[in-house]
Amino acid sequence: MKKIGKTFIISGPSGVGKSTVLAALFKDREDLYFSVSATTRAPREGEIDGKDYHFIDAGEFRKMIGEDAFLEYAEYVGNFYGTPKKYVDEAMANGLDAILDIEIQGAAQVCAKRPETVRIFIAPPSWEELERRLTARGTDSPEKIQQRLLRAKVELDSARCYDYLVINDTVDEAVEELRAILRAEHCRPAERVSQLMD
Amino acid sequence: MKKIGKTFIISGPSGVGKSTVLAALFKDREDLYFSVSATTRAPREGEIDGKDYHFIDAGEFRKMIGEDAFLEYAEYVGNFYGTPKKYVDEAMANGLDAILDIEIQGAAQVCAKRPETVRIFIAPPSWEELERRLTARGTDSPEKIQQRLLRAKVELDSARCYDYLVINDTVDEAVEELRAILRAEHCRPAERVSQLMD
Repeated sequence: MKKIGKTFIISGPSGVGKSTVLAALFKDREDLYFSVSATTRAPREGEIDGKDYHFIDAGEFRKMIGEDAFLEYAEYVGNFYGTPKKYVDEAMANGLDAILDIEIQGAAQVCAKRPETVRIFIAPPSWEELERRLTARGTDSPEKIQQRLLRAKVELDSARCYDYLVINDTVDEAVEELRAILRAEHCRPAERVSQLMD
Repeated sequence: MKKIGKTFIISGPSGVGKSTVLAALFKDREDLYFSVSATTRAPREGEIDGKDYHFIDAGEFRKMIGEDAFLEYAEYVGNFYGTPKKYVDEAMANGLDAILDIEIQGAAQVCAKRPETVRIFIAPPSWEELERRLTARGTDSPEKIQQRLLRAKVELDSARCYDYLVINDTVDEAVEELRAILRAEHCRPAERVSQLMD
């Protein structure tokens, strides 16, 4: 039976370990496509066009907005960031699941356009643990860490309307949960009944 | 984190291999409870009360109907069959998932009472394969097999409103899909957000 690609959004607060979990999820999985965002900000040292971002200019970005070519987009400190429909649709047409690493507001935009999108929120096992992880990174001041914690609590409250909430206690367990969710979502009747009814 | 028990209904047409799949699902899983039905029919040779069925008399069954003590029940060739709430609720209170092997009409009754119940339909990989399996059992006449096939098609049509549709192509794959579904359903925000918001 041919697998039909689906779109999954994965959100999670700063410090929760989302990048590590995503890297582990993609290991040995050639049926997954990681969505690369488009941005108008300049490439930083070492960033590769098409891998880290699709780097485009503001004129092109605005043109794409006008053509409804984004699943979601936002402006952030003077630059645009967005998820082009094109690559996601190409991946799904090839039977891959498209994984979008975007935050809650972007997720809401995607689901408004495509309600069938599956939303997964990655949460810490506790607030104490999230604080510990943010502190261990050593990149933020204590004030910044408190801001991030507060924001994480607001985000988790919004995640009530997500389809799934994965707890990143250990990476292995979080990845197993993600894999179970992806697999389960491919067992939906809409995808399968029509193939069997013939 | 303490697991909270959920109820899963597993339905499927005659000949699809549901018993084999369920036996494999329950192997080494002490977190699952298999719901035993109550019936007013007499025990057959070798049947054990409380294991094959809870054998009760018609007066007791009617009393239980009056007390709304069944998740679902039906009359079939002069006997009553039903799923007592009691054992399912006890299992869930102990953190077990309750697995109910019931058909589509019973499933509709359960979901009317408890909309959070997850419904899984087990389907054959094709009609030809279902016919082959029914023939291989050697228990039905060709006419009876055609009746069962027709009924299976009607049931699959109803299964469009189920939450999941698992294809029993191989038992191993079907069990893996079931396990993924059970695991994924325990990642729902309703179950988890409240534990984290404190």
